[in-house]
Amino acid sequence: MTQRARIVIVGCGFGGLFSARALRHTPADVLIIDHNNYHLFQPLLYQVACAALAPADIAQPIRTIFRPQQNARVMLADVSGVDLAGRAVIAGNSRLPYDYLILAPGAVDNYFGHPEWSAYAPGMKAVEEATLIRSRLLRSFEAAEIEADAAERAAHLTFIIVGAGPTGVELAGAIKELAVDVVARDFRVADTRQARVILVEAGPRVLPALHPDSSARALAQLQELGVEVRLGAPVTQVFADGVELGGARLRSHNIIWTAGVRAAPLTAALGTPLGPGGRVRVERDCSVPGHPQAFVIGDAAHLIDDATGQVVPGVSQGAMQMGRYVAGIIDAELRGRATARARGFHYRDLGSMATVGKSRAVVELGRLHFGGLLAWFAWMALHITVLIGFRNRLAVLSSWIYSYVFFRRGSRLITNLEPAAVCEPIAPATASAPTEPRS
Amino acid sequence: MTQRARIVIVGCGFGGLFSARALRHTPADVLIIDHNNYHLFQPLLYQVACAALAPADIAQPIRTIFRPQQNARVMLADVSGVDLAGRAVIAGNSRLPYDYLILAPGAVDNYFGHPEWSAYAPGMKAVEEATLIRSRLLRSFEAAEIEADAAERAAHLTFIIVGAGPTGVELAGAIKELAVDVVARDFRVADTRQARVILVEAGPRVLPALHPDSSARALAQLQELGVEVRLGAPVTQVFADGVELGGARLRSHNIIWTAGVRAAPLTAALGTPLGPGGRVRVERDCSVPGHPQAFVIGDAAHLIDDATGQVVPGVSQGAMQMGRYVAGIIDAELRGRATARARGFHYRDLGSMATVGKSRAVVELGRLHFGGLLAWFAWMALHITVLIGFRNRLAVLSSWIYSYVFFRRGSRLITNLEPAAVCEPIAPATASAPTEPRS
Repeated sequence: MTQRARIVIVGCGFGGLFSARALRHTPADVLIIDHNNYHLFQPLLYQVACAALAPADIAQPIRTIFRPQQNARVMLADVSGVDLAGRAVIAGNSRLPYDYLILAPGAVDNYFGHPEWSAYAPGMKAVEEATLIRSRLLRSFEAAEIEADAAERAAHLTFIIVGAGPTGVELAGAIKELAVDVVARDFRVADTRQARVILVEAGPRVLPALHPDSSARALAQLQELGVEVRLGAPVTQVFADGVELGGARLRSHNIIWTAGVRAAPLTAALGTPLGPGGRVRVERDCSVPGHPQAFVIGDAAHLIDDATGQVVPGVSQGAMQMGRYVAGIIDAELRGRATARARGFHYRDLGSMATVGKSRAVVELGRLHFGGLLAWFAWMALHITVLIGFRNRLAVLSSWIYSYVFFRRGSRLITNLEPAAVCEPIAPATASAPTEPRS
Repeated sequence: MTQRARIVIVGCGFGGLFSARALRHTPADVLIIDHNNYHLFQPLLYQVACAALAPADIAQPIRTIFRPQQNARVMLADVSGVDLAGRAVIAGNSRLPYDYLILAPGAVDNYFGHPEWSAYAPGMKAVEEATLIRSRLLRSFEAAEIEADAAERAAHLTFIIVGAGPTGVELAGAIKELAVDVVARDFRVADTRQARVILVEAGPRVLPALHPDSSARALAQLQELGVEVRLGAPVTQVFADGVELGGARLRSHNIIWTAGVRAAPLTAALGTPLGPGGRVRVERDCSVPGHPQAFVIGDAAHLIDDATGQVVPGVSQGAMQMGRYVAGIIDAELRGRATARARGFHYRDLGSMATVGKSRAVVELGRLHFGGLLAWFAWMALHITVLIGFRNRLAVLSSWIYSYVFFRRGSRLITNLEPAAVCEPIAPATASAPTEPRS
């Protein structure tokens, strides 16, 4: 009896998840390694940050997902490197040998050479970041409530989102709604309806990856909601209490970074040429140059689709399609069949969408571009359908219906902000401030 | 126009919450201060620790609770002291003057002079502790899965709960079920059904506050589930990898402390005589001796009910009843009516219950003591009914139905364990261990 082929998949985002599932009938042992024990449905992470969903609503244990898949095993570990020549993955003190490797480590926040900004402007890639942003948002309202100084109170009620991609746009809309519709009636002194939400974008339009039609539509929707949008405004400095935009300073105690991502640091450990944002320059078949058994997919891969001349975008669709494509190659090779290597990977754009608060969205499906309530229903339907796991679909749907009907958000918890302390309280500025009710 | 009376309530557990609500028609300004922004439904906190519920399911924003109460304001702050003579609460740099004070700061874990044990054996009082315990539990199964050494694997699959009060009993049952029914099929190597759950109690019976009937019933139910119960076994030492019981050492990487509570540290700052567990020795009317305008209620108060000669127990019912009682005194005095001060506070035991895993429980209602499925339904009905907030009731009920029908738990997230690191991964011990499937 010859040994079964060993396939190691690093990372269980959309790319890793879809490749592992596509290998379910492959005669091989599939090992899925991730540093989290859950697959995170990242498109909805902003809803955790704005207190609409609980983390468990958008995270499903990887083990539960692969319970029925007989050839799959799951390992919780941090992969520190890959020995491409020796065909082994390094995790802690272990070497995990492979016959095929699929690297899908995903992306991290990109501060473009200013890692020190992360302390003032957390990003939105991990559950821990989303709950941190949630706690900071909710504490801003609390701080405004007890702040006697008007300018300081205004700074607590100013929220700056840097970067107007889908996450930035969706977050801006959701924060504005949180301030206006959800928490306003909970405060006696601070008027949270006056909160300023400022979406800052270096480029000339919001949602730069979408068609200009959709950008214009989303911009109008954001402005209807009351979000201030600053276009062509690159952030040149980030402070604890604001940002600098073209020489001018905007005060805020709450800055969120959605300006860009780069590949996970693991890519740098491969010793192979990297493209923009630390992405691995892969071959047409997603393999690492010189190592046809090792593939890099998803946000960590840089691939120019030779059919279109375009870079495959760092979106979940791209990662899923790459995952299925490389799984197909591996399955075919293990069965001695013809593979799609020579054909190369081709990205199929299935459409894009982004939501701008409740009952507003923009959708692009091929040449069909539309917005408004219909787009919002399309967005809802798609996200509910794709959400992994029966319980999560139900939980998310009921949370959404609840917040839609009652203008409430169910996950408004301020949890441990400063990791070392059990709870760092806000020191009220003066005793007199809170006793003057809002007129 | 004379100034309205100022009532300050410190802490929004059951005592603070019920006193504030009982003051809703009182002609006074009521200020509720808490260091969390939510009221926590503590009786279900153990369900967060064992991954059945999400934190948001059992926590409701205090502001939302008091939104309709016109005379109430809410402040997020940490109270560091009370100037009883000057009638002011100290929070941060502020002095908050009061005409009446209700101190309901609750309880914290009691390590009986060994605070260093808390690092190895976290307690169960706060949301952050419950999510820490959840992460540790889930990581123990992960560690067992990749551990090659059999003794070490057994230590990862041994869970020790110190203290067999209601929280300890409920947690022991829930962890056993987690290991046997929920996660077993997710692991390929480790047999989590072999997990040992050991409930350790210094006294002679479980649920010591209940009738011996109920203790015997709960003990039988725990043993049916497969929980090992060690009675008359005081813990003499706690280590990172186990506990010492009467000279013998029990190995475990997962120790949970439910052995007792003491009053919140604020009580020590009052400068008034303290009783057992740092509780304030209050007068018959719950007031601080010499300060009839200042009351201490709930877990922070030590009061002997002169009708029964018994100490009022540190349970939610006691806190609620005290809260309503002191609110009645304050309301009557402000309206110039006769008060119940002279009558003193009398605790009315409305019954006790504890659940031991799915479909098992014990209930005491007066002389009626029963167990089994009926008791479990009674437990469910009561907890759902009392849960604060419409959304939470629905969310909790749907989570329970889901886990009952599908043997699953929806909140199996390992989040940030070591506060400083984003995620500290488990280093697999050897590469070979995970490749041998369980026979």
